[in-house]
Amino acid sequence: MSKFWSPFVKDLVPYVPGEQPKLAKLVKMNTNENPYGPSPKAVAAMQAEVGDNLRLYPDPNSDRLKQAVAEYYGVQPAQVFVGNGSDEVLAHAFHGLFQHGQPLLFPDVTYSFYPVYCGLYGIPFEALPLDEQFQIRVEDYARPNGGIIFPNPNAPTGCLLALEAIERLLQANPDTVVLVDEAYIDFGGQSAIALVDRYPNLLVAQTLSKSRSLAGLRVGLAVGHPDLIEALERIKNSFNSYPLDRMAIAGAAAAFEDRAYFEETCRKVIDSREQVVVELGKLGFDVLPSAANFVFARHPQKDAAGIAAGLREQGVIVRHFKQERIAQFLRITIGTPEQNQALLDALGTL
Amino acid sequence: MSKFWSPFVKDLVPYVPGEQPKLAKLVKMNTNENPYGPSPKAVAAMQAEVGDNLRLYPDPNSDRLKQAVAEYYGVQPAQVFVGNGSDEVLAHAFHGLFQHGQPLLFPDVTYSFYPVYCGLYGIPFEALPLDEQFQIRVEDYARPNGGIIFPNPNAPTGCLLALEAIERLLQANPDTVVLVDEAYIDFGGQSAIALVDRYPNLLVAQTLSKSRSLAGLRVGLAVGHPDLIEALERIKNSFNSYPLDRMAIAGAAAAFEDRAYFEETCRKVIDSREQVVVELGKLGFDVLPSAANFVFARHPQKDAAGIAAGLREQGVIVRHFKQERIAQFLRITIGTPEQNQALLDALGTL
Repeated sequence: MSKFWSPFVKDLVPYVPGEQPKLAKLVKMNTNENPYGPSPKAVAAMQAEVGDNLRLYPDPNSDRLKQAVAEYYGVQPAQVFVGNGSDEVLAHAFHGLFQHGQPLLFPDVTYSFYPVYCGLYGIPFEALPLDEQFQIRVEDYARPNGGIIFPNPNAPTGCLLALEAIERLLQANPDTVVLVDEAYIDFGGQSAIALVDRYPNLLVAQTLSKSRSLAGLRVGLAVGHPDLIEALERIKNSFNSYPLDRMAIAGAAAAFEDRAYFEETCRKVIDSREQVVVELGKLGFDVLPSAANFVFARHPQKDAAGIAAGLREQGVIVRHFKQERIAQFLRITIGTPEQNQALLDALGTL
Repeated sequence: MSKFWSPFVKDLVPYVPGEQPKLAKLVKMNTNENPYGPSPKAVAAMQAEVGDNLRLYPDPNSDRLKQAVAEYYGVQPAQVFVGNGSDEVLAHAFHGLFQHGQPLLFPDVTYSFYPVYCGLYGIPFEALPLDEQFQIRVEDYARPNGGIIFPNPNAPTGCLLALEAIERLLQANPDTVVLVDEAYIDFGGQSAIALVDRYPNLLVAQTLSKSRSLAGLRVGLAVGHPDLIEALERIKNSFNSYPLDRMAIAGAAAAFEDRAYFEETCRKVIDSREQVVVELGKLGFDVLPSAANFVFARHPQKDAAGIAAGLREQGVIVRHFKQERIAQFLRITIGTPEQNQALLDALGTL
């Protein structure tokens, strides 16, 4: 603490991301990165941007990327917002759309950045318990609120909420924004972007860090009614005119344009996930139904922290959250078939 | 306006960056980009980062870049903060260091993003008039404040405040943060980073967009006492864990490591500026003394908006601000010798 700090800073409890180890040779299954590289067309587009033109500012509106996203989803560019990772997009949404005095609602087991944003912007919140099967109960959200947010599939559970349930949520809350955070949607769900033209209170956020394999590039986006997008643009243009650099715009646009590679790599991850679920079952694990590129699993007899430590000794890193309801679970990213086998082999020894 | 917006959003007056025209073949002297490309070593470092590793998150702490900056300036890495352009760094500083109820102080003619940040974070401010020669009068800042910020050299004037005057400011304001925004310092000033070990209330911000010719990469930094840096880190880690992508970390670090190229290109820009000042004088312009990579000039007889429009017709873009005290000035970026000649030739016809 320092007298120079704005007073709220001393109470901030920042988000802690998964470890990014600097050692090579680890089987890294802790931050839900894609085991396959980005689209070769995205790589080529970025390579073409590296050069003297970097002396020039990028397009502050990232029009090329907005156009690519709009075409992919069949919406208008004015319905698309882009930012420096979906974390930045979410931060602007909290700032610009959730400050209404009433508490923001989200699940008790969810992306742990949400309460951090609330701390940053002074937004009250209520964390509503998932049911015994770790599912969202839509009925619980029928209470006064300043907004609703949840990941779909949820993190770190991987559980999917059906579009029909999301529609009920939207209809029950016409006066506040419902933000569906679809970081993992491409691994098994249907995007709520299909609903944005019918619900002006729906904002859908996505990232290029998972299904498009560009975590190292930092690009996220949101799609919704132009009025919601305008709030985000006003915040963005009062914060940083140029959040996306030239390579991010070029690479992200090319990634959206390369459907074939995207679909092929998503399919490989999904197939691997289904195999991992079967094998984990054989090893005695309970695995929640996952529509993501990770699984959330517990062993009825073995302590999760102990398993994580044992895996680490064998060079496999998974994520363990020291949070009451989920302290006996591990979140395990789906890797290549070879990496998944290394995980299963290591688990077999513990 | 929409019922979904947080109430403060309707009153935001976002910053308007200089035009980034999509036409080629323009002589672009409106956003103070460097006419020379980035360091070839920075280009090579970025090229080496483009590939499959982009599937992985970057180092959230950008340690490699902090180390390069610390070595360059002879400070500790814990005294260095990095962000997605100096605009993001400044935004976090406003949020984390300037919310003390008392007004923030800055010059009336200055970087026009400062009042925008104040709007974003609800910070009161007082804009103190520059003197008749467009210089900062240090004595005027001896009044209750929640912080002080100014660019050095100032923008859009290009005028430099001496380190001795900055020290007087720091000594007169030991209880609030003095933020020196050194976007243009390498074109003719001495960095106040030389003072950070003696003044715990000093924060110095810089960008790689100007002297290091990486506007398209989006990297900025701040140097100061570790307590000030910790406030920025807390905000950053409550906003976006990974603001710098892999190529930004690699390219920016390499740019700091390549001193020879940096010094050579700065020298060329400075030499060109001095020639442009002489030639503008011959054309009848009054030019403020500039320590930046631009000049701020007015013509006693000719209307600035008219000159800007006339230049544009000839394919030369300069920046004109419709702000009372400076409405008869033009801000002209220093280009290559060929670009500068094109500017002077075009001015000669008006």
